[in-house]
Amino acid sequence: MTSGAPKREVLPEASNEEGLYALTAALVRTVRNAVDRSDSDGLRELIAPLHDADIADLIERLPSDDRHQFVSLAGDAVSGEVLAFIEDDVRETIIRQLDAHKVAEAISDLDTDDAVAVLEDLDPPQQREILEALPNQADRIGVQESLTYPENSAGRLMQREVISLPAFWTVGQTIDFMRENDDLPDDFYEIFVVNPRQEPIGTVRLNRLLRSQRPIRLRDIMERELHVIPADTDQEEIGFVFDQYDLISAPVVGASGRLIGMITVDDVLDVVQEEAEEDIFRLSGVQEADIYRAALQTAGGRFIWLLVNLATAILASFVIYQFSGTIDQMVALAVLMPIVASMGGNAGTQTLTVAVRAIATKDLSLSNVHRVFGKETIVGLLNGIVFAVLTGGVAAAWYADMALGFVIGGAMVINMLVAGMFGLIIPVVLWRLRIDPATAAGVLLTTVTDVIGFLAFLGLAGMFLL
Amino acid sequence: MTSGAPKREVLPEASNEEGLYALTAALVRTVRNAVDRSDSDGLRELIAPLHDADIADLIERLPSDDRHQFVSLAGDAVSGEVLAFIEDDVRETIIRQLDAHKVAEAISDLDTDDAVAVLEDLDPPQQREILEALPNQADRIGVQESLTYPENSAGRLMQREVISLPAFWTVGQTIDFMRENDDLPDDFYEIFVVNPRQEPIGTVRLNRLLRSQRPIRLRDIMERELHVIPADTDQEEIGFVFDQYDLISAPVVGASGRLIGMITVDDVLDVVQEEAEEDIFRLSGVQEADIYRAALQTAGGRFIWLLVNLATAILASFVIYQFSGTIDQMVALAVLMPIVASMGGNAGTQTLTVAVRAIATKDLSLSNVHRVFGKETIVGLLNGIVFAVLTGGVAAAWYADMALGFVIGGAMVINMLVAGMFGLIIPVVLWRLRIDPATAAGVLLTTVTDVIGFLAFLGLAGMFLL
Repeated sequence: MTSGAPKREVLPEASNEEGLYALTAALVRTVRNAVDRSDSDGLRELIAPLHDADIADLIERLPSDDRHQFVSLAGDAVSGEVLAFIEDDVRETIIRQLDAHKVAEAISDLDTDDAVAVLEDLDPPQQREILEALPNQADRIGVQESLTYPENSAGRLMQREVISLPAFWTVGQTIDFMRENDDLPDDFYEIFVVNPRQEPIGTVRLNRLLRSQRPIRLRDIMERELHVIPADTDQEEIGFVFDQYDLISAPVVGASGRLIGMITVDDVLDVVQEEAEEDIFRLSGVQEADIYRAALQTAGGRFIWLLVNLATAILASFVIYQFSGTIDQMVALAVLMPIVASMGGNAGTQTLTVAVRAIATKDLSLSNVHRVFGKETIVGLLNGIVFAVLTGGVAAAWYADMALGFVIGGAMVINMLVAGMFGLIIPVVLWRLRIDPATAAGVLLTTVTDVIGFLAFLGLAGMFLL
Repeated sequence: MTSGAPKREVLPEASNEEGLYALTAALVRTVRNAVDRSDSDGLRELIAPLHDADIADLIERLPSDDRHQFVSLAGDAVSGEVLAFIEDDVRETIIRQLDAHKVAEAISDLDTDDAVAVLEDLDPPQQREILEALPNQADRIGVQESLTYPENSAGRLMQREVISLPAFWTVGQTIDFMRENDDLPDDFYEIFVVNPRQEPIGTVRLNRLLRSQRPIRLRDIMERELHVIPADTDQEEIGFVFDQYDLISAPVVGASGRLIGMITVDDVLDVVQEEAEEDIFRLSGVQEADIYRAALQTAGGRFIWLLVNLATAILASFVIYQFSGTIDQMVALAVLMPIVASMGGNAGTQTLTVAVRAIATKDLSLSNVHRVFGKETIVGLLNGIVFAVLTGGVAAAWYADMALGFVIGGAMVINMLVAGMFGLIIPVVLWRLRIDPATAAGVLLTTVTDVIGFLAFLGLAGMFLL
């Protein structure tokens, strides 16, 4: 990371964005040319000025055939850091083609959290092979232990490299210790104060340490308000705590309460983004970001949601089927019925989305769910009335039929009211049942709004128009 | 923040979550009781052990009538930090009821970024009044200057409190300076090294400083790979840079290139979450998180999207209207047509969502847009064929009509292929036109899939079935 020549990157201003993208496309082209020519030296020269994260991006952007070629030509320019920065799907295919010893060597310099990130998605036999090839036994045991914790838990996210000191140490002792000790974490922002049982009892941010006189003891400057994270805590919870309390790092404890590692905010930044994206993707029926996946896998990953949607669409059709006779007498109903269903679906999705995010950010909880339910019901009713008038007016004018306008207006109020209520009820019930509210909520909701929409419109039409 | 009694909070484990939520509900109830009794002492005692962020949450959760009462009873327990943690909509109504001098006093201890966050959404006259009441003139000028930068820009997010030192200073000088100087930022993680023109030329993370011997000069330990952020950079770009390069803080420069402040990762955590949420909300037609808003405002905020959706739904109905004669001859078409439109809408939304996020995270750019387009076309075709067979089979069996099965199958392939293509084309074109891809994309897409779905199905039916 430390480089000789002064490098200085000024972010392009908004108007310069074109330049940035053009440059990226040009760089990708140049790199592909070097790869095609098997020009190892040229390639290394091209990527030498790049940050590890940018090399990782570059690899992701190459067509899959070129990626392996790139990695073998670039040699050790593809460091452990670069591997850690590469997106999961792409990394898996790259590592599968690399020698276990080469991977082991590359990740041996990483902190445990990054080493775990590289290894956790591999097949067990390959994982074992790389672990056995790790030169340092302590590293191996640390990584293995971290891998025993569940996916997306604190135990996986944490790094074992952490500084923990007893409360009676002075600032001077602490600084001298850090100056003399080479085996410190790559980066850290605070040191943790532990009791004789190795339980964390306080934290000292480095700027506090730097501002204090040498004879002062840690116990006198440590912050006692600790946010201790048990190793099996889920990452969503970790993201919440960091965001809520503006943490920069936090101590992780094992089942016995002993300090076993720390989580730093750079990992949490990824977590927060991942969790918010997970909600977006689940609401749209995509399992995860699949931009770097092959077409067949992508199609497969999206299949299930489409299948569920087909089932609910058939259910809605079955409702319409019951009114075949009604439609046969009045084709206008077939023309207008999608409007009622569509408006209900959209209004419901608005409520649903707000509710899903509010549950995730803990803005919606048992303490205010009744109030929010009351509000969403009123919102549904208000917009229902407004759109009943608008749609009723359009329909009445279109077919020169006042009664038809009243029927579609009535159906609209009913469906938008139901949409607002179920847009909240569905995610809240799923959440209380410990099911991720984002996953199934969208299907359930549109099933409700389609069925109620068709039922209300065609039912009212059957009663009042024929 | 520094408190006498040792406080130690262990995150509840997954199985304990019930407890946490129950506790919150109970706390809200108890606080409301104290507010109802105007029991100022009781209230202060209740909130004394809480973190500022939790007091802010508590205020948000109260019914709006109780909030003002709470703030006046709690007195200075509602500090500047608490105000900074409160969600925008709620903060605005609270500050409107407070005396300008009280607000000025509360925010005078805050770093500029937090003071700006409190002030930026207020009406100009109220903002001016509070600014004039600020006791410290330097603070006032700093906040005023920050407010001249555009909303969501680096100039608003940054704090002016920053440590910048010349490269020839030694580690020892630096540590002594920090020990003797009281006027430092509340929290900082690195110091910036500047040249005589005050331009940032390097950065020294505090742990690097602590590990170095006193006589060493900053120039010899500083990291030269700087990510300098111009003050008018948009927050989305800032979030990207912090995430990409795992930054903890970054220097902000004015138009002249002089260092004027820094952005810290805790603010960026909010930004990353906000930007991802913005995409979720825009895709669902919600302008922003509105859980704390009154029903009337909420309904108003969601009205526009529903109106646009009504227009597109009417457009789709108009397509159906053209086929009134066809439907009149065969009611089965009315029963089945929503299936084709719904499947296209869902398949298109999957592609759209992936594309919108990939553009935001720069995973989709000009360098790979052709490849992704080819892939999405294949995905659309693959799933189109699978669902053509499924839906065709169901329709043929339902109405005992093979030809009907072929017609709906053909329409399904067409619509899902179009959905995959437009799911990518629409956000990419919007992005190149510098329009936020998330905002208008959903409406445009469902318009396309509804129109093509009805047109293909009813058109093919008209050609082959009658």
